[in-house]
Amino acid sequence: MDKKIILSGMRPTGKLHIGHWVGALSNWVQLQKDYTCFFMVADWHSLMSEYKFPEQLKEYVFDNVCDWLSFGIDPESSAVFVQSEVPEHLELFFILSVLTPLGWLYRCPTYKDQIKQLQEKEVNTYSFLGYPVLQAADILIYKATHVPVGQDQLPHLELCREIARKFNFLYKKDVLVQPQALLTKDSRLLGLDGRKMSKSYGNSIYLDDSDEEIDKKVMSMITDPARIKKDDPGHPEVCNVFSYYKVFSPQRVEDAADWCSNAKKGCVACKRELAESLKVFLAPSREKKKEILKKKDYIYDILKTGRKKAQSAALTTVNEVKKAMNL
Amino acid sequence: MDKKIILSGMRPTGKLHIGHWVGALSNWVQLQKDYTCFFMVADWHSLMSEYKFPEQLKEYVFDNVCDWLSFGIDPESSAVFVQSEVPEHLELFFILSVLTPLGWLYRCPTYKDQIKQLQEKEVNTYSFLGYPVLQAADILIYKATHVPVGQDQLPHLELCREIARKFNFLYKKDVLVQPQALLTKDSRLLGLDGRKMSKSYGNSIYLDDSDEEIDKKVMSMITDPARIKKDDPGHPEVCNVFSYYKVFSPQRVEDAADWCSNAKKGCVACKRELAESLKVFLAPSREKKKEILKKKDYIYDILKTGRKKAQSAALTTVNEVKKAMNL
Repeated sequence: MDKKIILSGMRPTGKLHIGHWVGALSNWVQLQKDYTCFFMVADWHSLMSEYKFPEQLKEYVFDNVCDWLSFGIDPESSAVFVQSEVPEHLELFFILSVLTPLGWLYRCPTYKDQIKQLQEKEVNTYSFLGYPVLQAADILIYKATHVPVGQDQLPHLELCREIARKFNFLYKKDVLVQPQALLTKDSRLLGLDGRKMSKSYGNSIYLDDSDEEIDKKVMSMITDPARIKKDDPGHPEVCNVFSYYKVFSPQRVEDAADWCSNAKKGCVACKRELAESLKVFLAPSREKKKEILKKKDYIYDILKTGRKKAQSAALTTVNEVKKAMNL
Repeated sequence: MDKKIILSGMRPTGKLHIGHWVGALSNWVQLQKDYTCFFMVADWHSLMSEYKFPEQLKEYVFDNVCDWLSFGIDPESSAVFVQSEVPEHLELFFILSVLTPLGWLYRCPTYKDQIKQLQEKEVNTYSFLGYPVLQAADILIYKATHVPVGQDQLPHLELCREIARKFNFLYKKDVLVQPQALLTKDSRLLGLDGRKMSKSYGNSIYLDDSDEEIDKKVMSMITDPARIKKDDPGHPEVCNVFSYYKVFSPQRVEDAADWCSNAKKGCVACKRELAESLKVFLAPSREKKKEILKKKDYIYDILKTGRKKAQSAALTTVNEVKKAMNL
């Protein structure tokens, strides 16, 4: 098999921030050059954790897709689609569910962590336990050969491979393809306050933030707490602002380290420089998004085309699956 | 609401036997006079327990529907359809899954029993735990006001009502209808050997058995073991043959009791009489089935029409569900 296929998705749980760019979207933009890509808005996955307040889900789906497009996802070469619009996902999910032992799910290392982390969302539900099975269906339905994952997602991918093997073994046919991990380097960007970047902490810079918002947010960032006065030498390696330089102003990383360690420039000035770089980086895509948002039909057309591409591939797999089982 | 709606289904796990007639089908034939009925071939439910050997599922689906029709289900007045052909079932199943706590499922009294009973089928799977949630979706999607259930199924119906209440509470809208139980009298017919009538025990009289098969099977039935010689008086109330008289030869029940208790007729003669009654009862439907089987397109047309009726109702509910959640 020469064709290299990727499935990757994002859960539409809010507006996209620069953490999403660093952790996933920038990677997607690269991957689409070498792979046949299926980029999925994982709205069923969102619903698993956001079921108590799903009012804005639809809005986030639309907004996230606009961000993808304005940041370089090419809907001509990749399929951009919404999971719930391809009903075959739930069909394969169900079929895989009948052969997935409960033990495999309880033993999944992420499960207990997530239940604790998302305690206030009450995800001790039936669907949440099956999260990795739906994920497996998402991947296997496109016969993805590769899946970009972080280290923490590896157990889910192993489970997906195990489910594929069990299916192929039970029905004596190599229908499902075991995907390989494309390990993404752990480049998680922390939020403005040094905690995980998250909507609920209010510590994110959104991909469509205005210049004013960027200025305000960057200036509020916490720097090396040991550097009290401008003349105190700082420690770039512990400074959150410095980690942003590495991503958004790589050409000035050495300068910034020098300003800080040798107390040549104060934190305020350093942040001001960072804000400028961020604005230069975000502005073109933000303006593009504004244009895109004016033509909603264009987005709907893209999603329609994406759904068709996705569904055609999904249907082929589901038909093969059913044939192997004689359904 | 005046409209009384029923949803009921059978799992296509084999050919239908006279136990299915007594326990369900005879009831359906009566119910269709007073209710709008949705009669469903629950093939997804079958797959949950039969996933290791699904080869014959398709055949059973077809054969069961032929039995329904030849035994008096009227496809003009009722919707006769196959669960997996109405994808909305899985959609509502998923949506209900996101709000169903795992604890509700583990506390379901049937769950642990079933796991034990079906040990060799290895149903300790993810899907099997969600059995009652899929059942709830099946019922709620047609806004069934009534569901014919046996005593043992009452906890499932209560769970269905609980899920409906939680949905309506969370999304502040009375979309889902809480169904009432139509308790079916416990008229379970035992198999030829006095055990539960089951394909795997080889102790069933099938609805389409030939006259020869009926004779042979009835003559093999175990009668009152205390009645060794013909002149010994027997005990009809412990005799399995007598319980068959109650169902298939009600007009001769008193005679049969007299023959047995007063040793007027031997067991062989008594069974011969029963076989005659069974043949009279089964033959017309069996012949009708033979006719139906000659025109497969007629069956496919009925299933197509049934699917359309079912899907139209299902889609209305799913759309209301999504609207309430703003999906």
